[in-house]
Amino acid sequence: MEIRTATLADWAQIWPFFDAIVRARETYAYPADLTSDQARGLWLQPPPDHAVVAVADGEVLGSAKMGPNRPGAGSHIGTASFMVDPSRSGRGVGRRLAEYMIDWHRRNGFHGIQFNAVVETNTAAVHLWQQLGFTIIGTVPEAYDHREHGLVGLHVMYLPLG
Amino acid sequence: MEIRTATLADWAQIWPFFDAIVRARETYAYPADLTSDQARGLWLQPPPDHAVVAVADGEVLGSAKMGPNRPGAGSHIGTASFMVDPSRSGRGVGRRLAEYMIDWHRRNGFHGIQFNAVVETNTAAVHLWQQLGFTIIGTVPEAYDHREHGLVGLHVMYLPLG
Repeated sequence: MEIRTATLADWAQIWPFFDAIVRARETYAYPADLTSDQARGLWLQPPPDHAVVAVADGEVLGSAKMGPNRPGAGSHIGTASFMVDPSRSGRGVGRRLAEYMIDWHRRNGFHGIQFNAVVETNTAAVHLWQQLGFTIIGTVPEAYDHREHGLVGLHVMYLPLG
Repeated sequence: MEIRTATLADWAQIWPFFDAIVRARETYAYPADLTSDQARGLWLQPPPDHAVVAVADGEVLGSAKMGPNRPGAGSHIGTASFMVDPSRSGRGVGRRLAEYMIDWHRRNGFHGIQFNAVVETNTAAVHLWQQLGFTIIGTVPEAYDHREHGLVGLHVMYLPLG
Protein backbone atom coordinates (compact mmCIF):
# COMPACT_ATOMS: atom_id res chain seq x y z
CA MET A 1 0.00 0.00 0.00
CA GLU A 2 1.35 3.40 -1.01
CA ILE A 3 0.23 6.83 0.21
CA ARG A 4 0.68 9.54 -2.43
CA THR A 5 -0.73 12.96 -3.34
CA ALA A 6 -4.20 12.72 -4.84
CA THR A 7 -4.65 13.95 -8.40
CA LEU A 8 -7.73 14.96 -10.36
CA ALA A 9 -7.38 11.65 -12.20
CA ASP A 10 -7.94 9.80 -8.90
CA TRP A 11 -11.36 11.35 -8.39
CA ALA A 12 -13.15 8.78 -10.57
CA GLN A 13 -12.04 6.13 -8.08
CA ILE A 14 -12.66 8.23 -4.95
CA TRP A 15 -16.16 9.43 -5.78
CA PRO A 16 -18.01 6.06 -5.66
CA PHE A 17 -17.00 5.33 -2.04
CA PHE A 18 -17.16 9.02 -1.04
CA ASP A 19 -20.77 9.08 -2.28
CA ALA A 20 -21.62 5.77 -0.59
CA ILE A 21 -20.17 6.96 2.74
CA VAL A 22 -22.06 10.27 2.67
CA ARG A 23 -25.31 8.53 1.73
CA ALA A 24 -24.87 5.98 4.53
CA ARG A 25 -25.15 8.99 6.94
CA GLU A 26 -23.15 7.33 9.69
CA THR A 27 -19.93 9.35 9.77
CA TYR A 28 -20.02 12.67 7.86
CA ALA A 29 -22.26 15.71 7.64
CA TYR A 30 -21.98 16.63 3.98
CA PRO A 31 -25.02 17.79 2.02
CA ALA A 32 -26.98 14.66 1.11
CA ASP A 33 -27.41 15.73 -2.52
CA LEU A 34 -23.76 16.61 -3.14
CA THR A 35 -22.74 16.16 -6.78
CA SER A 36 -19.44 14.63 -7.85
CA ASP A 37 -18.16 18.04 -9.00
CA GLN A 38 -19.08 19.71 -5.71
CA ALA A 39 -17.51 16.91 -3.67
CA ARG A 40 -14.30 17.04 -5.73
CA GLY A 41 -14.12 20.79 -5.08
CA LEU A 42 -14.45 20.21 -1.33
CA TRP A 43 -12.00 17.31 -1.19
CA LEU A 44 -9.23 18.31 -3.61
CA GLN A 45 -8.45 21.84 -2.44
CA PRO A 46 -5.39 23.93 -3.30
CA PRO A 47 -2.52 24.47 -0.82
CA PRO A 48 -2.26 24.93 2.11
CA ASP A 49 -4.68 21.96 1.97
CA HIS A 50 -3.36 18.57 0.91
CA ALA A 51 -5.15 15.41 -0.22
CA VAL A 52 -3.71 11.93 -0.56
CA VAL A 53 -4.82 8.49 -1.67
CA ALA A 54 -3.91 5.04 -0.39
CA VAL A 55 -3.21 2.88 -3.42
CA ALA A 56 -2.47 -0.81 -3.93
CA ASP A 57 -2.14 -2.51 -7.31
CA GLY A 58 -3.31 0.70 -8.99
CA GLU A 59 -6.56 0.78 -7.03
CA VAL A 60 -7.55 3.59 -4.68
CA LEU A 61 -8.47 2.07 -1.29
CA GLY A 62 -9.08 5.31 0.55
CA SER A 63 -8.33 9.01 0.67
CA ALA A 64 -7.59 11.71 3.22
CA LYS A 65 -7.56 15.49 3.11
CA MET A 66 -5.76 17.70 5.60
CA GLY A 67 -4.80 21.31 6.22
CA PRO A 68 -5.30 24.25 8.60
CA ASN A 69 -8.47 23.94 10.68
CA ARG A 70 -8.98 27.72 10.60
CA PRO A 71 -7.39 30.60 8.72
CA GLY A 72 -5.40 33.43 10.26
CA ALA A 73 -4.94 33.25 14.02
CA GLY A 74 -6.06 29.58 14.06
CA SER A 75 -3.95 28.26 11.19
CA HIS A 76 -1.31 26.59 13.40
CA ILE A 77 -3.83 23.83 14.24
CA GLY A 78 -4.55 21.30 11.52
CA THR A 79 -7.52 19.09 10.74
CA ALA A 80 -8.27 16.16 8.46
CA SER A 81 -11.01 14.01 6.96
CA PHE A 82 -10.86 10.39 5.86
CA MET A 83 -12.77 8.22 3.43
CA VAL A 84 -11.97 4.53 3.15
CA ASP A 85 -13.71 2.35 0.60
CA PRO A 86 -16.09 0.24 2.77
CA SER A 87 -15.29 -2.80 0.63
CA ARG A 88 -11.60 -2.38 1.60
CA SER A 89 -12.06 -1.84 5.32
CA GLY A 90 -10.19 -3.93 7.87
CA ARG A 91 -6.93 -3.78 5.91
CA GLY A 92 -5.39 -0.96 7.93
CA VAL A 93 -6.06 1.67 5.26
CA GLY A 94 -7.45 4.17 7.79
CA ARG A 95 -4.48 3.71 10.11
CA ARG A 96 -1.95 4.17 7.31
CA LEU A 97 -3.70 7.35 6.13
CA ALA A 98 -3.88 8.60 9.73
CA GLU A 99 -0.18 7.98 10.39
CA TYR A 100 0.69 9.79 7.16
CA MET A 101 -1.61 12.66 8.18
CA ILE A 102 0.02 13.09 11.60
CA ASP A 103 3.48 13.03 10.04
CA TRP A 104 2.41 15.58 7.42
CA HIS A 105 1.24 17.98 10.14
CA ARG A 106 4.51 17.53 12.06
CA ARG A 107 6.62 18.17 8.95
CA ASN A 108 4.62 21.31 8.20
CA GLY A 109 5.05 22.82 11.67
CA PHE A 110 1.50 22.50 12.99
CA HIS A 111 1.12 22.68 16.79
CA GLY A 112 -1.73 20.19 16.96
CA ILE A 113 -4.54 18.47 15.08
CA GLN A 114 -8.23 19.00 15.83
CA PHE A 115 -11.15 16.88 14.63
CA ASN A 116 -14.28 18.99 14.81
CA ALA A 117 -16.96 16.35 14.48
CA VAL A 118 -16.27 12.67 15.12
CA VAL A 119 -19.58 10.77 15.31
CA GLU A 120 -19.58 9.08 18.74
CA THR A 121 -21.06 5.83 17.39
CA ASN A 122 -18.19 5.57 14.89
CA THR A 123 -16.26 3.63 17.52
CA ALA A 124 -13.71 2.19 15.10
CA ALA A 125 -12.61 5.73 14.24
CA VAL A 126 -12.76 6.98 17.85
CA HIS A 127 -10.59 4.08 19.02
CA LEU A 128 -8.10 4.58 16.20
CA TRP A 129 -7.71 8.28 17.06
CA GLN A 130 -7.30 7.43 20.74
CA GLN A 131 -4.65 4.81 19.91
CA LEU A 132 -2.83 7.52 17.96
CA GLY A 133 -2.90 9.86 20.96
CA PHE A 134 -6.00 11.96 20.35
CA THR A 135 -8.19 12.79 23.34
CA ILE A 136 -11.85 13.78 23.44
CA ILE A 137 -12.01 17.51 24.30
CA GLY A 138 -15.79 17.40 24.57
CA THR A 139 -18.94 16.04 22.97
CA VAL A 140 -21.76 18.11 21.50
CA PRO A 141 -24.87 16.10 22.40
CA GLU A 142 -27.31 14.92 19.71
CA ALA A 143 -25.53 16.99 17.05
CA TYR A 144 -25.54 14.29 14.34
CA ASP A 145 -28.63 12.67 12.81
CA HIS A 146 -27.40 9.11 12.31
CA ARG A 147 -29.41 7.01 9.85
CA GLU A 148 -29.61 4.06 12.22
CA HIS A 149 -29.13 5.44 15.75
CA GLY A 150 -30.89 8.79 15.40
CA LEU A 151 -29.44 11.80 17.22
CA VAL A 152 -25.95 11.02 18.52
CA GLY A 153 -23.09 13.16 19.80
CA LEU A 154 -20.18 14.67 17.91
CA HIS A 155 -16.78 14.50 19.60
CA VAL A 156 -14.22 17.27 19.31
CA MET A 157 -10.87 15.45 19.42
CA TYR A 158 -7.36 16.84 19.70
CA LEU A 159 -3.75 15.71 19.39
CA PRO A 160 -0.99 18.09 20.49
CA LEU A 161 2.19 17.85 18.39
CA GLY A 162 5.02 18.44 20.86
CA MET B 1 -32.20 49.94 18.86
CA GLU B 2 -33.75 47.81 16.12
CA ILE B 3 -32.64 44.38 14.87
CA ARG B 4 -33.43 43.83 11.19
CA THR B 5 -32.24 41.71 8.26
CA ALA B 6 -28.93 42.94 6.88
CA THR B 7 -28.89 44.17 3.28
CA LEU B 8 -26.05 44.67 0.80
CA ALA B 9 -26.48 48.41 1.42
CA ASP B 10 -25.53 47.88 5.09
CA TRP B 11 -22.13 46.46 4.20
CA ALA B 12 -20.47 49.88 3.88
CA GLN B 13 -21.24 50.44 7.56
CA ILE B 14 -20.38 46.87 8.68
CA TRP B 15 -17.01 46.58 6.94
CA PRO B 16 -15.05 49.23 8.92
CA PHE B 17 -15.66 47.56 12.29
CA PHE B 18 -15.52 44.04 10.81
CA ASP B 19 -12.07 44.85 9.43
CA ALA B 20 -10.93 46.49 12.70
CA ILE B 21 -12.09 43.47 14.73
CA VAL B 22 -10.33 40.94 12.46
CA ARG B 23 -7.12 43.01 12.45
CA ALA B 24 -7.19 43.29 16.26
CA ARG B 25 -6.75 39.45 16.30
CA GLU B 26 -8.41 39.03 19.67
CA THR B 27 -11.68 37.26 18.83
CA TYR B 28 -11.89 35.79 15.31
CA ALA B 29 -9.79 33.59 13.06
CA TYR B 30 -10.48 35.10 9.65
CA PRO B 31 -7.71 35.48 7.07
CA ALA B 32 -5.74 38.58 8.07
CA ASP B 33 -5.71 39.98 4.52
CA LEU B 34 -9.44 39.53 3.87
CA THR B 35 -10.81 42.08 1.38
CA SER B 36 -14.15 43.82 1.81
CA ASP B 37 -15.64 41.78 -1.04
CA GLN B 38 -14.45 38.48 0.45
CA ALA B 39 -15.72 39.40 3.90
CA ARG B 40 -19.13 40.44 2.53
CA GLY B 41 -19.37 37.07 0.76
CA LEU B 42 -18.63 35.24 4.03
CA TRP B 43 -20.96 37.37 6.16
CA LEU B 44 -24.00 37.95 3.93
CA GLN B 45 -24.77 34.41 2.77
CA PRO B 46 -27.94 33.16 1.13
CA PRO B 47 -30.57 31.12 3.02
CA PRO B 48 -30.54 28.97 5.09
CA ASP B 49 -28.07 31.49 6.54
CA HIS B 50 -29.37 34.77 7.91
CA ALA B 51 -27.60 38.04 8.77
CA VAL B 52 -28.96 40.94 10.78
CA VAL B 53 -27.85 44.40 11.88
CA ALA B 54 -28.51 46.31 15.09
CA VAL B 55 -29.45 49.85 14.08
CA ALA B 56 -30.11 53.05 16.00
CA ASP B 57 -30.72 56.45 14.42
CA GLY B 58 -29.83 54.98 11.01
CA GLU B 59 -26.41 53.84 12.19
CA VAL B 60 -25.27 50.20 12.24
CA LEU B 61 -23.97 49.39 15.73
CA GLY B 62 -23.28 45.70 15.15
CA SER B 63 -24.15 42.67 13.06
CA ALA B 64 -24.72 38.96 13.49
CA LYS B 65 -24.87 36.03 11.10
CA MET B 66 -26.48 32.69 11.88
CA GLY B 67 -27.49 29.41 10.26
CA PRO B 68 -26.85 25.66 10.30
CA ASN B 69 -23.48 24.75 11.81
CA ARG B 70 -23.11 21.82 9.40
CA PRO B 71 -24.97 20.63 6.31
CA GLY B 72 -26.90 17.39 5.98
CA ALA B 73 -26.98 15.23 9.11
CA GLY B 74 -25.72 18.13 11.27
CA SER B 75 -28.07 20.87 10.02
CA HIS B 76 -30.42 20.75 13.04
CA ILE B 77 -27.74 22.51 15.13
CA GLY B 78 -27.20 26.20 14.46
CA THR B 79 -24.26 28.52 14.91
CA ALA B 80 -23.65 32.26 14.82
CA SER B 81 -21.00 34.98 14.69
CA PHE B 82 -21.14 38.51 16.05
CA MET B 83 -19.40 41.77 15.26
CA VAL B 84 -20.12 44.85 17.37
CA ASP B 85 -18.57 48.19 16.52
CA PRO B 86 -15.92 48.61 19.26
CA SER B 87 -16.81 52.32 19.50
CA ARG B 88 -20.40 51.26 20.38
CA SER B 89 -19.57 48.57 22.93
CA GLY B 90 -21.11 48.60 26.41
CA ARG B 91 -24.56 49.56 25.10
CA GLY B 92 -25.98 46.04 25.13
CA VAL B 93 -25.69 45.60 21.36
CA GLY B 94 -24.13 42.14 21.69
CA ARG B 95 -26.83 40.98 24.10
CA ARG B 96 -29.66 42.24 21.86
CA LEU B 97 -28.14 40.50 18.84
CA ALA B 98 -27.63 37.32 20.88
CA GLU B 99 -31.23 37.27 22.15
CA TYR B 100 -32.49 37.76 18.59
CA MET B 101 -30.19 34.97 17.41
CA ILE B 102 -31.47 32.48 20.01
CA ASP B 103 -35.08 33.35 19.17
CA TRP B 104 -34.36 32.98 15.43
CA HIS B 105 -32.99 29.46 16.00
CA ARG B 106 -36.04 28.52 18.11
CA ARG B 107 -38.46 29.85 15.48
CA ASN B 108 -36.66 27.88 12.77
CA GLY B 109 -36.77 24.56 14.63
CA PHE B 110 -33.11 24.13 15.49
CA HIS B 111 -32.35 21.70 18.35
CA GLY B 112 -29.42 23.66 19.72
CA ILE B 113 -26.75 26.26 18.99
CA GLN B 114 -23.03 25.53 18.89
CA PHE B 115 -20.19 28.03 18.95
CA ASN B 116 -17.13 26.36 17.50
CA ALA B 117 -14.39 28.74 18.56
CA VAL B 118 -14.90 31.24 21.38
CA VAL B 119 -11.52 32.74 22.35
CA GLU B 120 -11.11 32.00 26.07
CA THR B 121 -9.64 35.42 26.84
CA ASN B 122 -12.76 37.07 25.34
CA THR B 123 -14.35 36.93 28.78
CA ALA B 124 -17.08 39.47 27.99
CA ALA B 125 -18.39 37.15 25.28
CA VAL B 126 -17.90 33.97 27.34
CA HIS B 127 -19.87 35.48 30.26
CA LEU B 128 -22.63 36.72 27.99
CA TRP B 129 -23.04 33.25 26.45
CA GLN B 130 -23.06 31.66 29.89
CA GLN B 131 -25.69 34.14 31.10
CA LEU B 132 -27.81 33.13 28.11
CA GLY B 133 -27.51 29.44 29.03
CA PHE B 134 -24.54 28.26 26.96
CA THR B 135 -22.09 25.86 28.59
CA ILE B 136 -18.48 25.14 27.68
CA ILE B 137 -18.37 21.67 26.09
CA GLY B 138 -14.58 21.71 25.98
CA THR B 139 -11.57 23.87 25.22
CA VAL B 140 -8.98 23.22 22.53
CA PRO B 141 -5.73 24.37 24.15
CA GLU B 142 -3.53 27.03 22.50
CA ALA B 143 -5.64 26.96 19.33
CA TYR B 144 -5.82 30.74 18.85
CA ASP B 145 -2.84 33.06 18.31
CA HIS B 146 -3.97 36.17 20.21
CA ARG B 147 -2.13 39.37 19.33
CA GLU B 148 -1.61 40.29 22.99
CA HIS B 149 -1.79 37.03 24.97
CA GLY B 150 -0.18 34.63 22.50
CA LEU B 151 -1.55 31.10 22.23
CA VAL B 152 -4.87 30.80 24.08
CA GLY B 153 -7.65 28.22 24.07
CA LEU B 154 -10.79 28.08 21.96
CA HIS B 155 -14.00 27.07 23.73
CA VAL B 156 -16.66 24.96 22.07
CA MET B 157 -19.92 26.22 23.61
CA TYR B 158 -23.44 24.83 23.34
CA LEU B 159 -27.02 25.79 24.15
CA PRO B 160 -29.74 23.14 23.84
CA LEU B 161 -33.11 24.50 22.65
CA GLY B 162 -35.69 22.44 24.47
